[in-house]
Amino acid sequence: MYLSIDFNSDEAIYIQVRNQIILGIATAEIKEGDNLPSVRELADNIGINMHTVNKAYTILKQEGYVKLDRRKGAVVALDYDKIAAIEELKGRMRMILAQAICKNISCEEIHAVMDEILNEFSAFDS
Amino acid sequence: MYLSIDFNSDEAIYIQVRNQIILGIATAEIKEGDNLPSVRELADNIGINMHTVNKAYTILKQEGYVKLDRRKGAVVALDYDKIAAIEELKGRMRMILAQAICKNISCEEIHAVMDEILNEFSAFDS
Repeated sequence: MYLSIDFNSDEAIYIQVRNQIILGIATAEIKEGDNLPSVRELADNIGINMHTVNKAYTILKQEGYVKLDRRKGAVVALDYDKIAAIEELKGRMRMILAQAICKNISCEEIHAVMDEILNEFSAFDS
Repeated sequence: MYLSIDFNSDEAIYIQVRNQIILGIATAEIKEGDNLPSVRELADNIGINMHTVNKAYTILKQEGYVKLDRRKGAVVALDYDKIAAIEELKGRMRMILAQAICKNISCEEIHAVMDEILNEFSAFDS
């Protein structure tokens, strides 16, 4: 698993680690049941603090993407609470669509952007 | 302009102020050329620090939603840099779609959520 972390970004490193792992799952690079690297291994690989990796893994657990197993470490285990997930999606999407509308992006353009991204992720369905 | 701030939220107050103003513009409650309340007025109304309002207005300026006029204060002035806005939309949308895909939400369901929100905003077009 290759994570690209931008040390100059305003986004906190643990959020970047979380995001990259979620993107990895969405693109099927990482699959249900897969082990994530150990905290130490990932921290060493990226050159970040072990606490930072721990924080990312804890959030991924809280959000229902991984289980933390005492022997195996972090294992991808997706919690399909669809109703909660759709509510969350609505909340997040409302904000980014509001920004797009303010910038005069049309509904058609928004749908096109969305389809482009969903196509990128389509490997997941296969 | 009515802003609902959740003081128990994990989201910083200045981000909430920024988001509510963007939502206000998207739903045409606030329009191009409208004055935002003065920093003092908004701070007093919500019961927050003037620095917090200032921070929200400064970000709104940086992001191209308002101009800060020495006499008039903050005025809604939308910067339609569409190319930049579409790139930004892609980045943000990639992440929330990845989360939706991981939660087993289908493309059809994602499109439906999006249409529902765009309908809420449709007053903007009229």
